Amino acid sequence: MSAEPFLPTPPPAARFGVWLIGARGSVATTAITGCAAVAAGLHPPTGMVTETADFADCGLPPLSSLVFGGHDTVDCPLPKRAEHLAAGGVLPHGLPTAVHAELLAADREIRPGGPPPGATTGPGSAGDGGAGAEGAGVEGAGSVRSQGAGSAGAEAAGSVRTQDDWIEVFAADIRDFVRRNDLAGAVVVNVASTEPAPAGGALPASSLYAAAALRAGCPYVNFTPSAGLHHPALAEAAETAGLPHAGRDGKTGQTLLRSVLGPMFRQRALAVRAWSGTNLLGGGDGAALADPAAAAAKNGGKERVLADTLGAAPEGEVHIDDVPSLGDWKTAWDHVAFDGFLGSRMILQTVWQGCDSALAAPLVLDLARLTLRARQKGITGPLRELGFYFKDPVGDGPAALAEQYADLLTLAARLRDDAGGPDGPDCGDGGGEVRDRRGPHGRPDPQGGHDQHGSEVRR
Amino acid sequence: MSAEPFLPTPPPAARFGVWLIGARGSVATTAITGCAAVAAGLHPPTGMVTETADFADCGLPPLSSLVFGGHDTVDCPLPKRAEHLAAGGVLPHGLPTAVHAELLAADREIRPGGPPPGATTGPGSAGDGGAGAEGAGVEGAGSVRSQGAGSAGAEAAGSVRTQDDWIEVFAADIRDFVRRNDLAGAVVVNVASTEPAPAGGALPASSLYAAAALRAGCPYVNFTPSAGLHHPALAEAAETAGLPHAGRDGKTGQTLLRSVLGPMFRQRALAVRAWSGTNLLGGGDGAALADPAAAAAKNGGKERVLADTLGAAPEGEVHIDDVPSLGDWKTAWDHVAFDGFLGSRMILQTVWQGCDSALAAPLVLDLARLTLRARQKGITGPLRELGFYFKDPVGDGPAALAEQYADLLTLAARLRDDAGGPDGPDCGDGGGEVRDRRGPHGRPDPQGGHDQHGSEVRR
Amino acid sequence: MSAEPFLPTPPPAARFGVWLIGARGSVATTAITGCAAVAAGLHPPTGMVTETADFADCGLPPLSSLVFGGHDTVDCPLPKRAEHLAAGGVLPHGLPTAVHAELLAADREIRPGGPPPGATTGPGSAGDGGAGAEGAGVEGAGSVRSQGAGSAGAEAAGSVRTQDDWIEVFAADIRDFVRRNDLAGAVVVNVASTEPAPAGGALPASSLYAAAALRAGCPYVNFTPSAGLHHPALAEAAETAGLPHAGRDGKTGQTLLRSVLGPMFRQRALAVRAWSGTNLLGGGDGAALADPAAAAAKNGGKERVLADTLGAAPEGEVHIDDVPSLGDWKTAWDHVAFDGFLGSRMILQTVWQGCDSALAAPLVLDLARLTLRARQKGITGPLRELGFYFKDPVGDGPAALAEQYADLLTLAARLRDDAGGPDGPDCGDGGGEVRDRRGPHGRPDPQGGHDQHGSEVRR
Amino acid sequence: MSAEPFLPTPPPAARFGVWLIGARGSVATTAITGCAAVAAGLHPPTGMVTETADFADCGLPPLSSLVFGGHDTVDCPLPKRAEHLAAGGVLPHGLPTAVHAELLAADREIRPGGPPPGATTGPGSAGDGGAGAEGAGVEGAGSVRSQGAGSAGAEAAGSVRTQDDWIEVFAADIRDFVRRNDLAGAVVVNVASTEPAPAGGALPASSLYAAAALRAGCPYVNFTPSAGLHHPALAEAAETAGLPHAGRDGKTGQTLLRSVLGPMFRQRALAVRAWSGTNLLGGGDGAALADPAAAAAKNGGKERVLADTLGAAPEGEVHIDDVPSLGDWKTAWDHVAFDGFLGSRMILQTVWQGCDSALAAPLVLDLARLTLRARQKGITGPLRELGFYFKDPVGDGPAALAEQYADLLTLAARLRDDAGGPDGPDCGDGGGEVRDRRGPHGRPDPQGGHDQHGSEVRR
Repeated sequence: MSAEPFLPTPPPAARFGVWLIGARGSVATTAITGCAAVAAGLHPPTGMVTETADFADCGLPPLSSLVFGGHDTVDCPLPKRAEHLAAGGVLPHGLPTAVHAELLAADREIRPGGPPPGATTGPGSAGDGGAGAEGAGVEGAGSVRSQGAGSAGAEAAGSVRTQDDWIEVFAADIRDFVRRNDLAGAVVVNVASTEPAPAGGALPASSLYAAAALRAGCPYVNFTPSAGLHHPALAEAAETAGLPHAGRDGKTGQTLLRSVLGPMFRQRALAVRAWSGTNLLGGGDGAALADPAAAAAKNGGKERVLADTLGAAPEGEVHIDDVPSLGDWKTAWDHVAFDGFLGSRMILQTVWQGCDSALAAPLVLDLARLTLRARQKGITGPLRELGFYFKDPVGDGPAALAEQYADLLTLAARLRDDAGGPDGPDCGDGGGEVRDRRGPHGRPDPQGGHDQHGSEVRR
Repeated sequence: MSAEPFLPTPPPAARFGVWLIGARGSVATTAITGCAAVAAGLHPPTGMVTETADFADCGLPPLSSLVFGGHDTVDCPLPKRAEHLAAGGVLPHGLPTAVHAELLAADREIRPGGPPPGATTGPGSAGDGGAGAEGAGVEGAGSVRSQGAGSAGAEAAGSVRTQDDWIEVFAADIRDFVRRNDLAGAVVVNVASTEPAPAGGALPASSLYAAAALRAGCPYVNFTPSAGLHHPALAEAAETAGLPHAGRDGKTGQTLLRSVLGPMFRQRALAVRAWSGTNLLGGGDGAALADPAAAAAKNGGKERVLADTLGAAPEGEVHIDDVPSLGDWKTAWDHVAFDGFLGSRMILQTVWQGCDSALAAPLVLDLARLTLRARQKGITGPLRELGFYFKDPVGDGPAALAEQYADLLTLAARLRDDAGGPDGPDCGDGGGEVRDRRGPHGRPDPQGGHDQHGSEVRR
Repeated sequence: MSAEPFLPTPPPAARFGVWLIGARGSVATTAITGCAAVAAGLHPPTGMVTETADFADCGLPPLSSLVFGGHDTVDCPLPKRAEHLAAGGVLPHGLPTAVHAELLAADREIRPGGPPPGATTGPGSAGDGGAGAEGAGVEGAGSVRSQGAGSAGAEAAGSVRTQDDWIEVFAADIRDFVRRNDLAGAVVVNVASTEPAPAGGALPASSLYAAAALRAGCPYVNFTPSAGLHHPALAEAAETAGLPHAGRDGKTGQTLLRSVLGPMFRQRALAVRAWSGTNLLGGGDGAALADPAAAAAKNGGKERVLADTLGAAPEGEVHIDDVPSLGDWKTAWDHVAFDGFLGSRMILQTVWQGCDSALAAPLVLDLARLTLRARQKGITGPLRELGFYFKDPVGDGPAALAEQYADLLTLAARLRDDAGGPDGPDCGDGGGEVRDRRGPHGRPDPQGGHDQHGSEVRR
Repeated sequence: MSAEPFLPTPPPAARFGVWLIGARGSVATTAITGCAAVAAGLHPPTGMVTETADFADCGLPPLSSLVFGGHDTVDCPLPKRAEHLAAGGVLPHGLPTAVHAELLAADREIRPGGPPPGATTGPGSAGDGGAGAEGAGVEGAGSVRSQGAGSAGAEAAGSVRTQDDWIEVFAADIRDFVRRNDLAGAVVVNVASTEPAPAGGALPASSLYAAAALRAGCPYVNFTPSAGLHHPALAEAAETAGLPHAGRDGKTGQTLLRSVLGPMFRQRALAVRAWSGTNLLGGGDGAALADPAAAAAKNGGKERVLADTLGAAPEGEVHIDDVPSLGDWKTAWDHVAFDGFLGSRMILQTVWQGCDSALAAPLVLDLARLTLRARQKGITGPLRELGFYFKDPVGDGPAALAEQYADLLTLAARLRDDAGGPDGPDCGDGGGEVRDRRGPHGRPDPQGGHDQHGSEVRR
């Protein structure tokens, strides 16, 4: 390299895609805005675990290498959405303007999500778009899509789509995103509103998107309690896809607290009698979770953390109230009644006041980076070491945060260059080579052809 | 064993001494009452970590083997003190009556503590006896002591005692306790009221007692933030005594919480800006800590936990208010202001309402058992693995509770019979043999007497 | 009086009856125990407004003049029930023993309540007896009743009772209580568990008891949100009975707070956006309110206070969770989001930790005394001035506590001897005369004949 | 009026001055910004009691008639200061720009405050300017002042000023403000940082300004706990000035709550045992109150409210912590331990999270308007009916908020045109006339001299 008289044009740094289901929601908008802001040095990476020293040499794709796109059923453009969030105090004033170009670029990569036949609520609803924004039925969605300039899958319009049609449409959108942006890889992250627990045989929307991720050869992260890849009908596909995946349900506030307080009580042999909680939140998330079925899906994870860390589920309920005037700010009150020595009755109460989007967004960026790198290192299947991030982690890992953090550091070690696995260079500085190798094959073929990429994965 | 035609009289189960400095205080009274109650099956061992499965085979002395005694400057007999605690809701009604015999037995083993010359407050004040109970000066204490039937050191009365005189008097009390009760070992635990940070050259009372523990060949546990063995003048003695010791300042409430919440913030890369706290408590502890000097000693530990777990000390103060009407019940409010992603400002508040004595007592029993067993296994010096129990642990161990718990389990493994060290059997079932076998090895006892026991220490 | 050479035997001080619906519940037991304890000077009258100076000369019946009885469907005798409450920390230890005689006397005056035909839950369930204690159906209850030695209405057994039969049975029990105890008057107070809002035409149990009170010529107080006298079918009877009555739903904790905080926000022109609340409680009340229909009845009152004091109902829900391990202790968390100047967003949170029975019992005694005295002074109809005590007061009085207190003082003034009305002496010292006048007529006739007593009332 | 053929030029609407001590502090800046915003219809008058219906016909000067000026020792111009507050979330983004003209106009009317000889901290420090902004000593302040174009009192520069010199300088500034703006009257409101309780004979800065207000013929409002007009040396002047005045120490958060909760406990005969509080706040106010002497001044008022409303001062302390990272946002935690019936122990906790400036500013506007109108109606001396606004009200009015509100409404009635007093029309529509008509009636000026200003005021 040093001796060459004429330096060749350096290969462009590899770029990686982050495809967000619910791409115009609060979480997605905050993640996209924040990624640009931190990459530009406008803000410190507070809340991003992957920017701490422990992850410095893990070969994670730099924030500046991330390209965003996704599905959503609402139309509000990202720059406008970001302005709304700034008005609500979620984003700093002035930041949407400062990163307007990046928001606009991401917005251009958002494709309409469409409800499958017979679905009562459609897929891809924005994190806080609300059901009202999803009036379009199948035909309507199809017609919108067929007119969309950049939308693949237009050919499917005009007829009633099967589930597989929808999966193919979504997968085509993702492949198109990867190809046009010449990406070295992409991850699909579900940050849409929680959907009710599925009933009946039809795949819920979240699972259609998850299947599309597999078909497009992309790792998949489910940041919500929705079914996603967790649906029985997708079990085999998830098993054989040779792709890493992670989930479910990002652990951002009340459950995060529970995952450190539960172990404390157990380690101190204090007997928790009842653990009750109330969550107040507005925004679209509050409205979505006012649906008892969605709340039930959410609460399952919360209660599992207690049962796992305490050894048994204590008494107590969890309420999620929609309080529109709180906007994106959430207050969670927990009341823990426990017994001490000789039956003395004691109480711990916690009040957590945070902005859910601001808590979730850095974790979404963390997960995207970690999963992209895991894919590059050939790691496949459920990423059990990511339990740190989830209320209801895949696999049977620990429920206590401290042990989950230790697991995360173990994964970090595996992601280092010298840790074995496919000998590709770091995401950060050698993605070009990766792309070179894969160049002739275009984007990975979802149905079997993604040899180069796939082979990496399957090792 | 099975073939012997004439079974020898089985050796009596070994008994172990727990010598409490502040033996008539709330913590001591609760520990003595609770030990009897749990040993008798009247209450489950809630709050006792050493009764969980992880410690089942560590050879710890059973609760029924513990014999209590100690120093105090107040006169209120333990049965009466226990009734007061029951009236205040600290102990269950009826329990003092149920274990009256055990309380009376322990009370008979309490010897008067005496203030050293020139001390403004004397040593051995009960955890909540208050300064008012300590009017006795040196001569007074001496005269009381010289009349006490079971009190060693009566010979010292009538003259001005030096520091060394006091140490000798206290050590003689302990040796006498061990000898008369035919104990296989004893541990000295400081549960007296917090004393102001020492100024000037004289040893504070807590250090006189700590020195007496060493001189009597006993492990030492400092459950308070007082100087104890931590005094520079005792450094060499602690080093060369060949005895295990542990401290300082039991972690029972607010700091316990901080030791799990601090790591949570750090692991999630959330920037804690300010951590403020207010403690309300009555009882003698509230009164003692209303003394700013004592409070300063206490708060040092609290703040150290934050600095250690967060990486830097945040803004914020800690208040300790004496609120007599709260009695032994404590309320601790913590307010944590932290930054999330993109500078979003969030708040966590915690309110901990507990009974300090009920929180402390099971830890005192844990520490006594662990330290007695460590002594038996020949472990010497600071027990770094006991950081789980302390605000300001000896050594340089971790400050996060989860890591401290892992350390504790490591210690538990070392305490097992098959873990090496002196191959004595468990405390629980063979203490008598231990003493027999170890007789000939006795370390030179500083005061000449209990050679048997001494041999244990030196291994 | 002063001139008579031979003093006649002074007339025995008048005694007054307090007939409790749910007489073996926590509230009733606490009221009966506490009345005896305060009358005997064992405890100060904390929480009893009628024992403050403002009520000193209102002629209220002294606590020592009150005689208790009532209906209940559970069998646990009052002394035993009181012991349970002492074990749960609701009553001081030792107090049930100290007032055992009074508890026993009251227990002997308790008559079985019986479910009306077709009712799914019977009337007269104890405040915390739970539905499980009410297995007896109509016939069963009848047969039990027909065997009860002291029970009137035995004649009704063996046939299907009409609503009117039940009312007559209950009224007969009350008349019998008054007659046998030679009472100068009696008041009926409903402290039974909340019943679901009535549906269909049948009178709910609480209304049967209320009708019985009228028929027996007694004032009626509804301390619960149940229908009671508020049922449309009883409107005319309540109007024409010539008896004072008061209700509904004692204001003991969260709503009490709301009735002072709501006016504060309004007076300061601060815009409350959302007021959310969660109540955790155990005991039978928690279980009863876990029934959504009962909770709905309860929450109506809570929300009305906000709407009335704020001018409009804010956003926000109220949850009532049954947390059995909390026993009779209740925790209520309120979260108030309000706007300040220029739209600044502010939050008030309150946490109320109290014992509901201990909060309610002194109010029950207050209400019994005030209503008995009002009856004596000839006041009839709804006692609007008692809004101070209720979540959902009869009449259209103010909702702000301060104004309600002013109203209460107005009533106090009307109750004084010199305030006009029937010129009977105070309840406290001249009841004998009252009884003398009524002597020949026996107890008031429920069906029109209660001339003397009735005439007093109607004046 | 309607019949006149030629309408005369309508008199210009009267304008009224609000002279703020600490005019560049957070409270002043918020008040000035908010007055302009509400007057322009940009925001509703949330938090302004005088804009509620009860005050509609009281003849208060409209917000649009208020002209602002004042003293301060810091230089940061109001528009810049407002931008800082917007960045800190105290003011809405964009609002400083929207009312830039009004801020600039007010800023031009701010004159430098100057420390009197020997004072360690100068007068007129901004509410949150901090001590660091007040480096200028007497000469420095003088030289600045002598260069100030619009500053009266320049003649005093260059020599050591006596207290009276300073008073005269300040009074001249106020008179000049009134004259140049052709104001129908002006009120002086102290919103500067709390100063330590005065020691020694010299008048504290706040009292110099108060004396200047009297000398300039202006009503005076002390929104802080500083001495102001409350200094013994000013008692006679206050008495004879013939001017209304009000104070001390605006009741904005924790004490506001206490003034409704205290009465609740008392009215319910619940025995408060201990009331403890901790305040966390940043901004300059936090720093100022970190000075124990200033905090002591502040806490006096807080505790007085409890003693007055409960009947006796309970146990418990109040802490005020400077937590710079909280900025202008304040959190106040209160913990109330109280006894219920039969000694049951209960707890109420409150957490108040507010922005002090936003809470104070509308009250400042209220007070300015009420006091200006009271002056117009000829009301003199302490305005006892304004206790609603203060922690430590002048006079011996009630301490309960509800009664204070009733008093305020009484004052409102007195302010109406038909309520007697000088029969001038409303401030709002005929101020010009008022001045003309009232000219000949001028009150005797206490100091004799400042005829120009006095005549204006007196008209």
